[in-house]
Amino acid sequence: MTLKIGVIGTGAIGREHIKRITNTLSGGEIVAVTDVNQESANQSVEQYGLNAVVFPDDATLIAEGNVDAVFITSWGPAHEGSVLKAIEAGKYVFCEKPLATTAEGCMRIVEAEMKHGKKLVQVGFMRRYDSGYVQLKEAIDNNFIGEPLMLHCAHRNPTVGESYSTDMAISDTLIHEIDVLHWLVNDDYKSVQVLFPKKNKYAHQGLRDPQMVILETKTGIIINVEISVNCQYGYDIQCEVVGEEGIVKLPEVASITYRKNAALGANILMDWKDRFIDAYDVELQHFMDSIRDNGEPNGPTAWDGYIAQVTADACIKAQESGRKEDVVLKEQPDFYKNNLKTAQV
Amino acid sequence: MTLKIGVIGTGAIGREHIKRITNTLSGGEIVAVTDVNQESANQSVEQYGLNAVVFPDDATLIAEGNVDAVFITSWGPAHEGSVLKAIEAGKYVFCEKPLATTAEGCMRIVEAEMKHGKKLVQVGFMRRYDSGYVQLKEAIDNNFIGEPLMLHCAHRNPTVGESYSTDMAISDTLIHEIDVLHWLVNDDYKSVQVLFPKKNKYAHQGLRDPQMVILETKTGIIINVEISVNCQYGYDIQCEVVGEEGIVKLPEVASITYRKNAALGANILMDWKDRFIDAYDVELQHFMDSIRDNGEPNGPTAWDGYIAQVTADACIKAQESGRKEDVVLKEQPDFYKNNLKTAQV
Amino acid sequence: MTLKIGVIGTGAIGREHIKRITNTLSGGEIVAVTDVNQESANQSVEQYGLNAVVFPDDATLIAEGNVDAVFITSWGPAHEGSVLKAIEAGKYVFCEKPLATTAEGCMRIVEAEMKHGKKLVQVGFMRRYDSGYVQLKEAIDNNFIGEPLMLHCAHRNPTVGESYSTDMAISDTLIHEIDVLHWLVNDDYKSVQVLFPKKNKYAHQGLRDPQMVILETKTGIIINVEISVNCQYGYDIQCEVVGEEGIVKLPEVASITYRKNAALGANILMDWKDRFIDAYDVELQHFMDSIRDNGEPNGPTAWDGYIAQVTADACIKAQESGRKEDVVLKEQPDFYKNNLKTAQV
Amino acid sequence: MTLKIGVIGTGAIGREHIKRITNTLSGGEIVAVTDVNQESANQSVEQYGLNAVVFPDDATLIAEGNVDAVFITSWGPAHEGSVLKAIEAGKYVFCEKPLATTAEGCMRIVEAEMKHGKKLVQVGFMRRYDSGYVQLKEAIDNNFIGEPLMLHCAHRNPTVGESYSTDMAISDTLIHEIDVLHWLVNDDYKSVQVLFPKKNKYAHQGLRDPQMVILETKTGIIINVEISVNCQYGYDIQCEVVGEEGIVKLPEVASITYRKNAALGANILMDWKDRFIDAYDVELQHFMDSIRDNGEPNGPTAWDGYIAQVTADACIKAQESGRKEDVVLKEQPDFYKNNLKTAQV
Repeated sequence: MTLKIGVIGTGAIGREHIKRITNTLSGGEIVAVTDVNQESANQSVEQYGLNAVVFPDDATLIAEGNVDAVFITSWGPAHEGSVLKAIEAGKYVFCEKPLATTAEGCMRIVEAEMKHGKKLVQVGFMRRYDSGYVQLKEAIDNNFIGEPLMLHCAHRNPTVGESYSTDMAISDTLIHEIDVLHWLVNDDYKSVQVLFPKKNKYAHQGLRDPQMVILETKTGIIINVEISVNCQYGYDIQCEVVGEEGIVKLPEVASITYRKNAALGANILMDWKDRFIDAYDVELQHFMDSIRDNGEPNGPTAWDGYIAQVTADACIKAQESGRKEDVVLKEQPDFYKNNLKTAQV
Repeated sequence: MTLKIGVIGTGAIGREHIKRITNTLSGGEIVAVTDVNQESANQSVEQYGLNAVVFPDDATLIAEGNVDAVFITSWGPAHEGSVLKAIEAGKYVFCEKPLATTAEGCMRIVEAEMKHGKKLVQVGFMRRYDSGYVQLKEAIDNNFIGEPLMLHCAHRNPTVGESYSTDMAISDTLIHEIDVLHWLVNDDYKSVQVLFPKKNKYAHQGLRDPQMVILETKTGIIINVEISVNCQYGYDIQCEVVGEEGIVKLPEVASITYRKNAALGANILMDWKDRFIDAYDVELQHFMDSIRDNGEPNGPTAWDGYIAQVTADACIKAQESGRKEDVVLKEQPDFYKNNLKTAQV
Repeated sequence: MTLKIGVIGTGAIGREHIKRITNTLSGGEIVAVTDVNQESANQSVEQYGLNAVVFPDDATLIAEGNVDAVFITSWGPAHEGSVLKAIEAGKYVFCEKPLATTAEGCMRIVEAEMKHGKKLVQVGFMRRYDSGYVQLKEAIDNNFIGEPLMLHCAHRNPTVGESYSTDMAISDTLIHEIDVLHWLVNDDYKSVQVLFPKKNKYAHQGLRDPQMVILETKTGIIINVEISVNCQYGYDIQCEVVGEEGIVKLPEVASITYRKNAALGANILMDWKDRFIDAYDVELQHFMDSIRDNGEPNGPTAWDGYIAQVTADACIKAQESGRKEDVVLKEQPDFYKNNLKTAQV
Repeated sequence: MTLKIGVIGTGAIGREHIKRITNTLSGGEIVAVTDVNQESANQSVEQYGLNAVVFPDDATLIAEGNVDAVFITSWGPAHEGSVLKAIEAGKYVFCEKPLATTAEGCMRIVEAEMKHGKKLVQVGFMRRYDSGYVQLKEAIDNNFIGEPLMLHCAHRNPTVGESYSTDMAISDTLIHEIDVLHWLVNDDYKSVQVLFPKKNKYAHQGLRDPQMVILETKTGIIINVEISVNCQYGYDIQCEVVGEEGIVKLPEVASITYRKNAALGANILMDWKDRFIDAYDVELQHFMDSIRDNGEPNGPTAWDGYIAQVTADACIKAQESGRKEDVVLKEQPDFYKNNLKTAQV
């Protein structure tokens, strides 16, 4: 059984997913594409030798009977509309972050999905499929370190473009930690605070960088996340979980070690695309496998998308206020409580 | 374009490959299976929901027009016959080691393939597709450490069954180092020597374990390989290349690190099947991609299978003689000299 | 030239220093001891075979003409009085922390020392003599990582006694970070904040543990220090300095690595006394050498003792208020500005 | 009680020891010096401000009643004569390697010491006092890894002078492994073999470098030692002990780790003098302490010096013959069997 997939948005990330489905993974086929730039859509078909129809817009693509699932890889503000149309049509959705650009938008999706009565939507938070985070999750769930008390995290990029603004440290960068960390410790956020250390001289004018975000969960876990987007040395993701009886920490990316020039060293990645390359594969394969096996996706839900958006909003508010800000979440509907356990990788 | 694959031998490793092709990889389809135990062949079709015909034997499967490539995963002594039949039929071959159980058998395959005039055969030496070895190869080829002078290697299994005999340390265990190390340093072996250290108390009666093999290449690189098949603590593959200006070494398998009970630690794998699991995927995907893109496989060749067999024979002779033994290889035919560079992983 | 030393306080730490001076280090001799428990003082003479006079109290010991320097290893509240007497007598002082139990007391010592006109006092902050911290300091001073922007630190003890109270996390534990970190980045503290994560179940009733302290320096460096005194797994000191172009981090304590039982591991110390054992030796040797070579000690000064006390007071206030609290330091007198550079270790 | 020490040979290493005894360690005093270059002897007294008499030669220095112990740090060929004179005079001896330049010379010392009836001589093999080797020894003695079966070792220097010859890889370099490894596994050597890999282009004409030495012990442990004296990248000592149930390995030298320029790294020492600097301190302090506490040194004995010389001779013979050569040791006299256990460091 092959999942027939339509892709909405054939930019860089859309094409990465097209390539994965076509050349690397099993069980899916790209049968439809669309893009606001129709030329781009046409090119993507040619580039990967797809046997796919190019549609004029998301609505017509979603309406196509041959399409089982839609991948939404357009720009952020267009996500909500496409997701809602897909839900209405009863199509499965794999939506890159953000699910919607506002908490209200996310909630509209949540409500539409609940009204539909079956889970259809998975949000593209790929870190849950990274082998290191999966190992951390297993260790915590198996009580290997007792109750988690603190997390020390860092998200570092070597450099960013001029268009990267202070709030994007939250909405584009921290957003991944926001999703993966509450999943990791099985808890919700209660409050957030943002501190601005001395500015890095490599940060462009107008950008506050680095930043230190402190999140507190409902049960009292305190999480500090360093965000450095001009760290120069590499793309580096760190996560250490301090429990009552021990600590577990993400592994460094596997690299040969060398002894040369008075140093014992290993390479650090410079390009973020290399860091979670395996996780993207696992994420999409898992999306397709779960639909085949369970009739619904069981990765990050629309509710997780909502949590991420509300938390990000609170962080941005905290950036501006300089104070601790509450994360005010609605109560989780039962509909999302019985989420299938994320398959072990 | 989908590669139509027939599998000869539906035991454990045959089924692993069936599963990979069917559920994980892209571009291949199992259309035919056979096994000396027909019941096993039938079960494999059912187990993975294959749309595949069960053939009575290798000859009929190979003869089937719908089959583009055969995977030979039967027991070792049957390999040579199946490979020769496949070459004669002009079918692509992916053959698990050994290519043949004798150097003469390997040479018959080499000659048949040359006579056929195009490369058809890839031998299942998966380490060349392991990310760590690939990084070592790149470092050496890029002259990062100067000319290689020595290699320090270890191949350790926690334990082995009663049927594992002293010579199997060569034919089943060292065989992987034999292939991957000459590829790594782009050299051929000249002589081998085997030393037997004090016996491990966990080794069963009649088994010499551990062993220390010393291989010398034609250009004078000296390689020592520890083989320990009762090391108790894990499945552990080590490889360190000492060059004129530096050293490179395989990374440890990526594992979360922990601090607990007065120790800073990381997990070591116990099961060999987990160690090269990604490499198997890459190997088979690469086999299929290369046939699609180049019209021939470009992994380990029949000639590599011959080298492995001759070298292993010399090692077994050295086990018995206690002396240094020559590795006497025929001259490499031009046919195998222009092998396409193994695709970077 | 041998430095004649009198020891005030012959408890555990006093005896450790007596032993060091007598059996391990060069250039000093214990010639006088006193303790409020005279029996303890007598025992210390016997235990180490000292050729030393037992004095009835600090005043008579300090007055003894044969004494060049006094080591103050009595309980904290007695330190200030002994230090002031020693300064008045023009004797060198090595005083274990705290210099005095109040900021005012520290300031009285600062003023007495300035009035005396020559530096006499060194405070027992031994971390500045630890090889790891010295390497961090060199890297920062050599601009290896650019300007420091953030520090991520942890101070973990496996367990503490029932008498350990929440404020002691500052006055007994964090006090070492307070001293060493401002020295490391050559900056002063501006504000402090204390967060209380979920309580560790191993913490006794009435103790808040763990704690997360956030210190901000005048130039904007943000420092987070985890304090965990019931971490169970070991005594573990971590310090990572994030600069504009790179990061440097304390090494793990050197330990043989092992492969055993499916783990690759190294030992973590359980006893804090083992962690800085070399640093204590270097610290005291350096105290004696500097007096011999420079006529004054050049380790942590009375002013450093004052900084530590003011900062600790602010942290304890922040524990109670739950708010960010200012660190209000007087202006540094010129007298302390030209401190001799701490000798490289 | 202060040990009165006379130093024979005031070159580089002699002065290092004079400095240690005078400025760093406790319990010893340099009271006499001599050197074939009397000017050097005079300078050493001045350089360290010694209260020491300069003697015209070893005989007069040894005869001086005020001298309790002699340190022999002259050039190798002079050692035997000085040691024999000191034994005759009943003086303690700390002799840098070699004890004597021939096995026969070592045996003459052994016999002289036995005739004297009490152990007087310690040979300067400092690695036994290195914290890493001490930890390895403890792990082995505590049966942490079961019986040792193999050792994988490396001794690497960045570069050597033109005067360094092929045999010096044994007599000056491997000699340290020869001593420390048999102590580590509590065994004697049975045979040795030397292999010459491809020559490093940085090795000067006439020098075979690198070399691979294989030592076999009486109980069957096989030890491979890589000797590379032009490795360029650092001074690097590696030792891994493979036991029946696990492996232990020397720690890397503690260094801060850094993240910079796409690398995660740590420094490797370039200068051999830094590698065992602590071990030298411990070695000499222990020599003095043991004489004070036990009336005799309990470090490496004259018998250990003899073992080292016989083994080195066999290695040099193996360099020339290309064959495995026997290590033929006389039977160990009871006199040396009850050596006091080396004090734990």
